[in-house]
Amino acid sequence: MLEISEIFNAAAVLKGVARRTAIIPAPKVNPDVETYLKTENLQLTGSFKLRGAYYKISQLSPEEKSRGVIACSAGNHAQGVALGATHNGIKSLICLPAAAPISKVEATKGYGAEVCLVPGVYDDAYAKALELQKEHGYTFVHPFDDEKVIAGQGTIGLEILDQMPDVQAVVVPIGGGGLISGVAFAIKTLRPDVKVYGVQAGGAPSMATSLKEGKIAHLNDVSTIADGIAVKEPGVNTFDMCNRYVDEVVTVTDEEIAAAILLLLEQQKLVAEGAGAVSVAAVMFNKLPVQGLKTVCLVSGGNIDVTTLSRVINRGLSKAGRNYTFVIDLPDKPGQLSGVCAVIAEHGGNVISVNHERINSSAAISGCTIRVELETRDNAHIQNIREALKSSGYDVLN
Amino acid sequence: MLEISEIFNAAAVLKGVARRTAIIPAPKVNPDVETYLKTENLQLTGSFKLRGAYYKISQLSPEEKSRGVIACSAGNHAQGVALGATHNGIKSLICLPAAAPISKVEATKGYGAEVCLVPGVYDDAYAKALELQKEHGYTFVHPFDDEKVIAGQGTIGLEILDQMPDVQAVVVPIGGGGLISGVAFAIKTLRPDVKVYGVQAGGAPSMATSLKEGKIAHLNDVSTIADGIAVKEPGVNTFDMCNRYVDEVVTVTDEEIAAAILLLLEQQKLVAEGAGAVSVAAVMFNKLPVQGLKTVCLVSGGNIDVTTLSRVINRGLSKAGRNYTFVIDLPDKPGQLSGVCAVIAEHGGNVISVNHERINSSAAISGCTIRVELETRDNAHIQNIREALKSSGYDVLN
Repeated sequence: MLEISEIFNAAAVLKGVARRTAIIPAPKVNPDVETYLKTENLQLTGSFKLRGAYYKISQLSPEEKSRGVIACSAGNHAQGVALGATHNGIKSLICLPAAAPISKVEATKGYGAEVCLVPGVYDDAYAKALELQKEHGYTFVHPFDDEKVIAGQGTIGLEILDQMPDVQAVVVPIGGGGLISGVAFAIKTLRPDVKVYGVQAGGAPSMATSLKEGKIAHLNDVSTIADGIAVKEPGVNTFDMCNRYVDEVVTVTDEEIAAAILLLLEQQKLVAEGAGAVSVAAVMFNKLPVQGLKTVCLVSGGNIDVTTLSRVINRGLSKAGRNYTFVIDLPDKPGQLSGVCAVIAEHGGNVISVNHERINSSAAISGCTIRVELETRDNAHIQNIREALKSSGYDVLN
Repeated sequence: MLEISEIFNAAAVLKGVARRTAIIPAPKVNPDVETYLKTENLQLTGSFKLRGAYYKISQLSPEEKSRGVIACSAGNHAQGVALGATHNGIKSLICLPAAAPISKVEATKGYGAEVCLVPGVYDDAYAKALELQKEHGYTFVHPFDDEKVIAGQGTIGLEILDQMPDVQAVVVPIGGGGLISGVAFAIKTLRPDVKVYGVQAGGAPSMATSLKEGKIAHLNDVSTIADGIAVKEPGVNTFDMCNRYVDEVVTVTDEEIAAAILLLLEQQKLVAEGAGAVSVAAVMFNKLPVQGLKTVCLVSGGNIDVTTLSRVINRGLSKAGRNYTFVIDLPDKPGQLSGVCAVIAEHGGNVISVNHERINSSAAISGCTIRVELETRDNAHIQNIREALKSSGYDVLN
């Protein structure tokens, strides 16, 4: 049974290792909520996972330490365990799915772990890790369902209360539930008046479903851009602690998560991964009863692949009318493309790419279709250019 | 003549207004330099400019305040002046070039300024601002060549010494020179043993050139992705202060700036604008004698347009071999595209887009050219796919 003294102990162990991450005001998240961000995306290794993994490893017996540790992860936990083991002077072996991004594999190796790439998906890597553990006697470091790991994550709760004593609500992402279990336990023990809310991705609502059904639910399929919290089943300990200490758990959609990532990027100059941004998404889209409250959103990590980030940006730009692709049918004769470009230039559109297709079922036999991709200012600007093209006689299809 | 007491006064005035931004370790910038970041990109308004503008406005006489202030800026200074004026309860008018990004215009209005959009470029907006100032008696808030503005920026120097007393070197971006004048004056006055270095963009080296020539130089053309420091001529005061207090000024290229932006994004989870990243670029590419020193890079701002950010990311991904477009000549008969896709899939490439052109001068009359854009792991992966395509008999052109 976890006690608050264990969390204070974890804080002492983590001093000088984990960064005491800043709490930053975020006035643009929601006009009705006084929102702040606890920036664990700026934590060493790019996520809070270091805290729990490091503390767990520090508390192993000398005998356990001598055998080394093993973990399975496609992401943040891998780096946390690798760094925790190396700092404590012991060996670590991390099983990763073979398709894991090179950047994460390299980062894990960089923190001193031995990496075992397992063909298949996460579950295959997990099975392999258990097999290797039995064979060699390594200590398995669970990513969330472990009291020491939970105590390590709970240090964030202590920091929030210390950095912002008048906080009224804390909003925390949930995957397996290790982070929120520690944070909620610390806060509700010391300051039961502070609300603690959890947020899951709508495509992976394992804890939300479990709490609703009153027992641990297993999801067969999970799918979300917040891959760091795409967990099929909560832990036994974390389910019990969420039941007791968390006020409410809500879900957000992938579209809402993407919008939160873009807001953090543009307004706060912070990179958040999907899992890290769900707390902000929940406040942004009014999923929680925090109107008027001084609210801290825990941004749990920033390890988003830049390719994914680039896609999120592009999706967000399209939604905001900041780029657009016009499709136009033209008679196939000289000067047509040049005419279209002149109209666009005159109205301040910036051409990014042009695709000219002569063979297309939607065009007349002697015609062709062009696609012109533009940078635009907003949806009104797009409409402006559309009308200019039409009034110049061009057959704009969209 | 600026005195250190003025900077302490500015710090007192800014307390509760400007954020005391965190200093964060940045271990991946350069293996030989103990690098930290002073994160002014996380400052309110997304840049340090708020400090100088706010302090300047706070020090105006009641009579000056009653007339209101005017400024000209395409970016960060506009938001700083707007917020500073509104907080001090006075009117502000900001002249912006008409082509300024909507996001900056909206942000400036959002902080309570009246905005005057002037057709043309920055110089036209500047001329208009001077004209309006004469006509209406507004107080002009210069973006850098003003003692009060310099004192406000100097508060960053005080914070660095307070947050990291054992700092050995500070690296600061230079545009007009207001930021580095304040920071260098504060640091050299209180701690002459700490080195202060300046960094400019190679495409806009006005201060570097001026210092070399021993007199203020005027550049006719400036061109850099670091638009926030694309200044043609340093100020009279700032030139003098750089001469006296700055140890050395170096330049970095646009490619180096882009690489620094990408490193901050991927490794530090921070969004920096080009101007904000030049300090990091200088340390990353060994432009400064800071090997072995505890070095703080001032990241001055994060107001980069997401469209530009998206381009920088894509450029960086290409350079790192993380995407690639193969151009392949094919005989124009059924099954060819499918064969190419099969080879790519087998070797782990992820197809993003395909462009199939039947009419192309480089292809045989009966042939066609396809362009296949892929997500790849690195340059070795690209080479791997190229060889697989070639050994399957495909005519890869690049």
